[in-house]
Amino acid sequence: MKVAAGIDIGGTNTVFGLINESGAILAKESVKTKYFCTPDTFVDTMAKKVKELVDTNEDWELAGIGIGAPNGNYFSGTIEYAPNLDWNGVVPLVEKFEAFFDLPIILTNDANAAAIGEMLFGVAKGEKDFIMVTLGTGLGSGFVSGGNLIYGHDGFAGELGHTIVEINGRKCGCGRRGCLETYASATGLVRTAKKWLPEDPYSILNRYNKEEISSQIIGEAAQEGDELSLRIFDFTAEKLALGLANAVAITSPKLIILYGGMSNSKDLLLTPLKKHFENTLQNIFQNKISIKFSSLKEGEAAVIGAGALVWKIGLKN
Amino acid sequence: MKVAAGIDIGGTNTVFGLINESGAILAKESVKTKYFCTPDTFVDTMAKKVKELVDTNEDWELAGIGIGAPNGNYFSGTIEYAPNLDWNGVVPLVEKFEAFFDLPIILTNDANAAAIGEMLFGVAKGEKDFIMVTLGTGLGSGFVSGGNLIYGHDGFAGELGHTIVEINGRKCGCGRRGCLETYASATGLVRTAKKWLPEDPYSILNRYNKEEISSQIIGEAAQEGDELSLRIFDFTAEKLALGLANAVAITSPKLIILYGGMSNSKDLLLTPLKKHFENTLQNIFQNKISIKFSSLKEGEAAVIGAGALVWKIGLKN
Repeated sequence: MKVAAGIDIGGTNTVFGLINESGAILAKESVKTKYFCTPDTFVDTMAKKVKELVDTNEDWELAGIGIGAPNGNYFSGTIEYAPNLDWNGVVPLVEKFEAFFDLPIILTNDANAAAIGEMLFGVAKGEKDFIMVTLGTGLGSGFVSGGNLIYGHDGFAGELGHTIVEINGRKCGCGRRGCLETYASATGLVRTAKKWLPEDPYSILNRYNKEEISSQIIGEAAQEGDELSLRIFDFTAEKLALGLANAVAITSPKLIILYGGMSNSKDLLLTPLKKHFENTLQNIFQNKISIKFSSLKEGEAAVIGAGALVWKIGLKN
Repeated sequence: MKVAAGIDIGGTNTVFGLINESGAILAKESVKTKYFCTPDTFVDTMAKKVKELVDTNEDWELAGIGIGAPNGNYFSGTIEYAPNLDWNGVVPLVEKFEAFFDLPIILTNDANAAAIGEMLFGVAKGEKDFIMVTLGTGLGSGFVSGGNLIYGHDGFAGELGHTIVEINGRKCGCGRRGCLETYASATGLVRTAKKWLPEDPYSILNRYNKEEISSQIIGEAAQEGDELSLRIFDFTAEKLALGLANAVAITSPKLIILYGGMSNSKDLLLTPLKKHFENTLQNIFQNKISIKFSSLKEGEAAVIGAGALVWKIGLKN
């Protein structure tokens, strides 16, 4: 039976596994990314571990390796200046893996991999036009149009988190101001809380040191009915709605999928988001677009997405 | 020799013609769109006229008809609630043409048709990722990604003019506020002039009645060195730059093409646009993207674009 390896490289952990053509995970392991000081030691180890995993069942035959990584570039096969990884500069990751495997090796960024995973095996099954939004420390995105990922001419398309939603707004890690991810991300949520908390002595959030406040704590406070925390979610949703409405005007998707740590806030985010989204959309797009959470299990989605890259390539040939 | 008919339906005139596979116009005519009170009389006449045009040379064989029209929908083949046309509601234009021709009839909006025209015969030849921006009364756009137009799930993609660039900004015809086209269009230029003129008694524009001021007059004043008019162009360019930078973050194009009445302002617009654009772009996109004017002749580009729809379909088969 043909199996695809999916490798999800994160700043802390790298999770990898084997999936079948139905998207089921057959085997899964993980290593600490930070343990590997150079990409060479990382690839050496991963190549060995993937081969070992495939060899655990003599019925399995490896069809290819899909890799999702921050700043992973589909066209060049390189990881370029990823701020959360310790490997500097431009890392030719696909080339390094090709030294070990005479098989298709496909790299893209984590949000794009997640989008492919959703299209083949998740809530976007059968959808040809949708947007995948990963809400974590930052805001990542993958755009699918007519059944294909929008990679752009250089593989850098899909930077919804770096569309500007507020002129002269919050300072962003990218060096500019007002980017969507400075508002709509776990980090953005906390920034809003820290800004607004001094004006609200009655908020539950005052129980915590300013440094302790996380998106999870804000979520818990909101669940308890804390007014400030609810307002923080509403504000975050309003900004996200604007960014999404602008993206809709460009690609007109049928579906928007939310994924990642912050999407655990569920209705705290989704209810105000749907309201602001419909209010912000141009009338020709109103009441046409669903916003859903990913249906893939959190620990598995990234590996399934990475592995799905291999099956997606297969579909094209 | 196979020829394609291109029909460009505008609010005032409908221009139609025949193009060969190299994009050369072989014959061209026009009619007043407003003369036809119903789409049926329009289609009857156009079908007859296209047939007559093809019959003028016995060597010509019609391969199909491409139509560019405001609010033309590629998927449904309908023109939907076009504000500049007298035909109400949803007009099944392709169906009506099919009653006269057993050939491919392809409809899309004017900006998408222009994008296809540029890709096959204009400055986007060989480009697979670019944005076509038509600057006229409003701001239209067509997005090409990986060599294909982004139509979206419903054919309504490519509404760059209705991305919001200013929260609570200028009132837009779409019912919302702050849309890009309220700033970056001939109408937007005039709105800026009318707003700023009362504060500048020294501007050349004071020679005119407020009602007379057009984008052309502002352009002429700027050419003469009128400071206010130059500032108006700079402000317009700044807004356009923001809208474009946000679009770049989503589709990462190699090229942006400007077309339409307002692009006649040439360097008055292009010089400040390039400056603001580079200043607004995220660093990963800087110094990578060209902004060019369309190379197709103004009176011909729309017909070539519409006709090119036929050849583009041919390429897919």
